[in-house]
Amino acid sequence: MKTRAAVAFEAGKPLEIVEVDLEGPKAGEVLVEIKATGVCHTDAFTLSGDDPEGIFPAILGHEGAGVVVDVGPGVKNLQKGDHVIPLYTAECRECDFCLNPKTNLCQAVRATQGQGVMPDGTSRFSFEGRPIRHYMGCSTFANYTVLPEVSLARVRKDAPFDKICYIGCGVTTGIGAVAFTMKVEAGATVAVFGLGGIGLNVIQGARMVGASRIIGVDLNPAKVPLAKQFGMTDFVNPKEVDNVVEHIIELTGGGVDYSFECIGNVNVMRQALECCHKGWGESCIVGVAGAGQEISTRPFQLVTGRSWRGTAFGGARGRTDVPKIVDWYMDGRINIDNLITHTMPLDDINKAFDLMHSGESIRSVVLY
Amino acid sequence: MKTRAAVAFEAGKPLEIVEVDLEGPKAGEVLVEIKATGVCHTDAFTLSGDDPEGIFPAILGHEGAGVVVDVGPGVKNLQKGDHVIPLYTAECRECDFCLNPKTNLCQAVRATQGQGVMPDGTSRFSFEGRPIRHYMGCSTFANYTVLPEVSLARVRKDAPFDKICYIGCGVTTGIGAVAFTMKVEAGATVAVFGLGGIGLNVIQGARMVGASRIIGVDLNPAKVPLAKQFGMTDFVNPKEVDNVVEHIIELTGGGVDYSFECIGNVNVMRQALECCHKGWGESCIVGVAGAGQEISTRPFQLVTGRSWRGTAFGGARGRTDVPKIVDWYMDGRINIDNLITHTMPLDDINKAFDLMHSGESIRSVVLY
Repeated sequence: MKTRAAVAFEAGKPLEIVEVDLEGPKAGEVLVEIKATGVCHTDAFTLSGDDPEGIFPAILGHEGAGVVVDVGPGVKNLQKGDHVIPLYTAECRECDFCLNPKTNLCQAVRATQGQGVMPDGTSRFSFEGRPIRHYMGCSTFANYTVLPEVSLARVRKDAPFDKICYIGCGVTTGIGAVAFTMKVEAGATVAVFGLGGIGLNVIQGARMVGASRIIGVDLNPAKVPLAKQFGMTDFVNPKEVDNVVEHIIELTGGGVDYSFECIGNVNVMRQALECCHKGWGESCIVGVAGAGQEISTRPFQLVTGRSWRGTAFGGARGRTDVPKIVDWYMDGRINIDNLITHTMPLDDINKAFDLMHSGESIRSVVLY
Repeated sequence: MKTRAAVAFEAGKPLEIVEVDLEGPKAGEVLVEIKATGVCHTDAFTLSGDDPEGIFPAILGHEGAGVVVDVGPGVKNLQKGDHVIPLYTAECRECDFCLNPKTNLCQAVRATQGQGVMPDGTSRFSFEGRPIRHYMGCSTFANYTVLPEVSLARVRKDAPFDKICYIGCGVTTGIGAVAFTMKVEAGATVAVFGLGGIGLNVIQGARMVGASRIIGVDLNPAKVPLAKQFGMTDFVNPKEVDNVVEHIIELTGGGVDYSFECIGNVNVMRQALECCHKGWGESCIVGVAGAGQEISTRPFQLVTGRSWRGTAFGGARGRTDVPKIVDWYMDGRINIDNLITHTMPLDDINKAFDLMHSGESIRSVVLY
């Protein structure tokens, strides 16, 4: 079949909207009509050429929602008409990782996904006879796409695609970091470094689980009103204090119980660790640092009881946890609507990248 | 009263055995006759002058066992004749730290202990009219010493002082890191970097909790026989493999569930983290690095599911956990006897430091 798609033909160039060829689903695969897709920093990072694992030409996009159109042989858990959210972190429920309750990093399709192909080693997309790679196992910048069955979470049918697509990455990463990875408990104090989309989702995750104090840290005070709406109780601008670590330690009488780095800056990662409370404070790296960059601290920080951790996809097991987060949205426990600042048709997708780079958007969503 | 003591009059000089003056216990304090004391690397570190917090003159020693001789006003939980182990990490059961189940770092006497004095701000020791500082709240290199009540664990009377004194630091640090801080579960795989006294105690702690595979890492193959006796199942000599991290990952099919750095080398701390299994591996820093040194890694190590942690006094709450460890020893669940390679009278205490520096001893114990 044919489908419209925004193709990344080359690193550093705008996406091109073309009609590509799409093969139907093979064994264990599912054809999905994407109804909406967010445009995420990770798409921009790969498109820029800075991602050492980026492969071109490819169809980017990993934050979508849609409807099952067809299933390949052997598909057991999904059928035509199911509403689904693509998962760049699969959940096979059979590998050593899925069977270990401490991790969500299913390895079932990991190797081929990293190469931009389906588990059989081939791509379903082509353009003028040449294959085009999949991206993060999702390729939601195509109106129709094919995914392994284990890379799809079935969700309730009354949830709006144009909002729940954001659960495919940003919402789950932020809220999951709080709820699944760090298991923040009611009454805890929390510091959130970076008040972009991920930071705001960490903040509302912390509010949802009952954190008593949620300190937001950002250089840009324009972010304060929305962060407060999402649950921030205190704001710290590093430009306005001598030392952000000491300031947070004073503010909280010893440091926070949990901190989250939502920027990708290795120096901030250190601050996030060091503003944690002696004895029990735990810091979680959510942001993605540039290739080759390193974090550092004095080991004394850990020996005196702080822990340094990280999260990917918010520690969520996609097929199990993503439907729960959709429920939280539908029940009004979390806010997605106010984070989606811009929508556009596929033809205007490059504007979404411009809005991101200029800092005008929190999240742009492409509506098919 | 008078008591014999090995006094550190100056950094970098041998201890001097002299008779010092000792005031009796004030409110909340206890006079203890020390029966035996281990000589630990931490004593040597302070004596060397490299410890930025070292104060002189002082009576060092923090790994003892003895008998209560007298109690000051208001002491409720101890009486004359009780057998006790001094605690350099107190357990008051009232401070914010004691009331938080995530930490053992009681702060009740922390500030004054760091200054080498009792909680009222004064020292009980003096020599020729000048005060001598306490050390780590213990000063077990004196035959008689005074401690706060919260800094003493009462232990069973049938346990031999010359063995259980080692529970005051090394044994608890190693076994506690496994059992209390990291809560290693049966069946887990473990890597232990450094096969000195702490490393051997980590190994026997891992064996006690049922670890399936215990990999020891050391540059010195002479340490293998004893390490095997304590439970090591595999030995890796970094000099004999290309890359110790990759070697351990291969050996275990992905990395270990838990690793412990028992040396104090920041480069080894990184190796210990990076040989942990993706998704769930946790690394614990037990060794004490030199002042100002830093640990580093790529944040990707944490984002893909590894955790970096540390331990002090093995995460043990002294008054609660030290008596349990004494039971484990008396029940034959752990071996202390083979770790105490040398004993000597107080007059020969400087030999204990020589034996430590030459690598001849695992632990020397001074018998009063």
